[in-house]
Amino acid sequence: MKVRLRNPDREVELAGGRKVHDVLGELGINPDTVLVIRERELLTREDRVGEADVIEIRPVISGGSGGNRMRCRRCKDPAVVEIRRHNAAFCADCLVRHVREQVKRAIEGHDMLDPSDRILVAVSGGKDSLALWDILLELGYRADGLYLGLGIGEYSERSHRIARAFADGRDAHLVEVDLARDYGFDVPTAGRKGSRSTCAVCGLSKRYVFNRAAREGGYDVIATGHNLDDEAATLLGNTLRWQTDYIARQSPVLPAEEGFARKVKPLYRLSELETAAFAFLRGIDYVVEECPLVAGNTQLRYKDAMNHLESTSPGTKAQFLFGYLDRAAPLFASQDEAELVGCERCGQPTTGRFCAFCRAQAQILGERLGEPQGGRDERGERLGEPQGGRDERGERLGAARDEPSDRETVESLSDEVMPVEMYGTVRR
Amino acid sequence: MKVRLRNPDREVELAGGRKVHDVLGELGINPDTVLVIRERELLTREDRVGEADVIEIRPVISGGSGGNRMRCRRCKDPAVVEIRRHNAAFCADCLVRHVREQVKRAIEGHDMLDPSDRILVAVSGGKDSLALWDILLELGYRADGLYLGLGIGEYSERSHRIARAFADGRDAHLVEVDLARDYGFDVPTAGRKGSRSTCAVCGLSKRYVFNRAAREGGYDVIATGHNLDDEAATLLGNTLRWQTDYIARQSPVLPAEEGFARKVKPLYRLSELETAAFAFLRGIDYVVEECPLVAGNTQLRYKDAMNHLESTSPGTKAQFLFGYLDRAAPLFASQDEAELVGCERCGQPTTGRFCAFCRAQAQILGERLGEPQGGRDERGERLGEPQGGRDERGERLGAARDEPSDRETVESLSDEVMPVEMYGTVRR
Repeated sequence: MKVRLRNPDREVELAGGRKVHDVLGELGINPDTVLVIRERELLTREDRVGEADVIEIRPVISGGSGGNRMRCRRCKDPAVVEIRRHNAAFCADCLVRHVREQVKRAIEGHDMLDPSDRILVAVSGGKDSLALWDILLELGYRADGLYLGLGIGEYSERSHRIARAFADGRDAHLVEVDLARDYGFDVPTAGRKGSRSTCAVCGLSKRYVFNRAAREGGYDVIATGHNLDDEAATLLGNTLRWQTDYIARQSPVLPAEEGFARKVKPLYRLSELETAAFAFLRGIDYVVEECPLVAGNTQLRYKDAMNHLESTSPGTKAQFLFGYLDRAAPLFASQDEAELVGCERCGQPTTGRFCAFCRAQAQILGERLGEPQGGRDERGERLGEPQGGRDERGERLGAARDEPSDRETVESLSDEVMPVEMYGTVRR
Repeated sequence: MKVRLRNPDREVELAGGRKVHDVLGELGINPDTVLVIRERELLTREDRVGEADVIEIRPVISGGSGGNRMRCRRCKDPAVVEIRRHNAAFCADCLVRHVREQVKRAIEGHDMLDPSDRILVAVSGGKDSLALWDILLELGYRADGLYLGLGIGEYSERSHRIARAFADGRDAHLVEVDLARDYGFDVPTAGRKGSRSTCAVCGLSKRYVFNRAAREGGYDVIATGHNLDDEAATLLGNTLRWQTDYIARQSPVLPAEEGFARKVKPLYRLSELETAAFAFLRGIDYVVEECPLVAGNTQLRYKDAMNHLESTSPGTKAQFLFGYLDRAAPLFASQDEAELVGCERCGQPTTGRFCAFCRAQAQILGERLGEPQGGRDERGERLGEPQGGRDERGERLGAARDEPSDRETVESLSDEVMPVEMYGTVRR
């Protein structure tokens, strides 16, 4: 039996004539974290694979099809996906319906979207953002996509092609911004030249560009594909550090305010397993590869910890995230009190004189923010006033810095997850 | 090379002539979770082991001795223990001093103990409780021990012998309570007959007996050996469920109040690695075996998750626990508002008519609490009044119950960790 594994792509020969469960066990793979695919069908843990089969094990999901075992909770047809935390399995049609219902429930439960809203979906080319765009379009919302070119070699090129093809296939409008073309740097360069980690500057750039494009394009709301796994991992990271201000801003919807478009996360009730199965079953071509720069990303370590706990206690992630939203969020509301003003360089909201993006950009490009140069930057915007102080986070502005300390790296990563400058303050 | 592993005891033959680090890697063991011992010396990850060596890998620690590598942070002698979260290593003498200083810092920082206090140390026979008793005696405190016999076969017998030997060797006073003799049931029976998990009823019994013995024996304070790993795991478990009332009661010191003796945890700043190394270096004979009933214990899964995160980010546990105490605890203070009254059966404080221990005991012994029997129980105490309602947690009182649901098991385990009836309310 041939088994095709992803990230990195490779093939192994294994003994067939046994259950998927046993194959995954031999490979040390948690069934909840992969899709098992034979030709165009999904396999559950209980399905048997033959000696002559070729199967693909694709992160992220568990699945299965046909056979005499699991049945769809709704229609009793053979199930193709098992959702352990719901103690349920679904056939293809019912899984698609289940996912759409969870999204509707999220949207209605939090007043996320109005039918008249112009929505900008942040599209990476991955399963979550394309599934989200697909669902919003199917539900009849006015949803455009925004693709941000990060300049990460072949990975970014493939992501771009896939996002473009999705839009063309549905006659949908895709806004395109390119970090190098429009802002003068790409993510690999930023990771090498700036004081922030690659992931931190990438996240910062995404949030900045999404908000700016939404505001300048007349959109009412930004929709992102953050799922239950993302949100639980972020909450875990912020809670392990008791970053009470970041915890306070963790919400499926952040209302518009002072220069910030409204932000919504309609997939927050769905696991990666469910969004990946949905994308597969809807025939959505998405980028399976992980970003090549992501190795060691802190967020992935938190996901790993949550998956570990979930594997023995299905429902841990949902209990953690929903329990926070239901019971603990009110306790943290007082921690979110940042005052926002316009960045002196770009006008976007910030807690300091210059927003985090402009500071990072200036550092990467070797410019000095706030120098009395009186000039204009590469976007024709006037550069700020002279000053040599420190901003609200104690960072020196503009000037070249040494290697960041551990503490700064931690702050940087927190910032990556939830900067006040992107999400704004939440009124509860 | 012969390697002796514990829990369960076994020996394996491995290739020698390499570093401890490589041996542990082959065994898939996290160096932070074991002591590596050759005869009477500890080995660090960087020490070499020879083909003819016999080494013991003992949970829980990393260590090392001699050689030309790590040096003690204080005296520059060869180090025997590495504390990665402090980015430090210590020789034997300085490790002992370091541990005592951390305990002194905990005691002084939280006003845990006064020199005139009569202290009752909850002694299990394990490394933490014996290390704690040793430290308190060395620091000149008036500390007696309390050993509770749980009736878990040879494991309890060995624990008893070791606690007894420790007390005799130091001319210290050991109070002894036996669950079967004094309360009519042992832990294995309770696990089979009651509606609570074995671990839950064991934890409940310990807390009940410790408090009652302290109150009746005229002690001012109960000291327990909870260490940093215990406290971080408990906080993680309570936070994953956002049990805001349990989170609110997590503190290194819980003041005396309404039927509760003061409770202190002087080891809360020290990892298991540090307490195990301390116990070993002080020549304290302790029970290395884990409780045979502990398999699948939820708390161990949280420890596992924390160890996993700690292994790539040393300091995660300390940051999580201390960050909570410093920044988040005040946000939860309002969640801790239970009203306590005396249990109608035993007089110990409770939030309901009967305390959790009396309810569990009655269930295990097949008695009915609150029936109009007017009799007295096995301790000569009058049994409570009739009533057929539900208590504050919605549980039916006394009557036999079916298998507990998952939800009840979860509640039971939360209860195990931090029942209001043991810890009382905290005034901040």
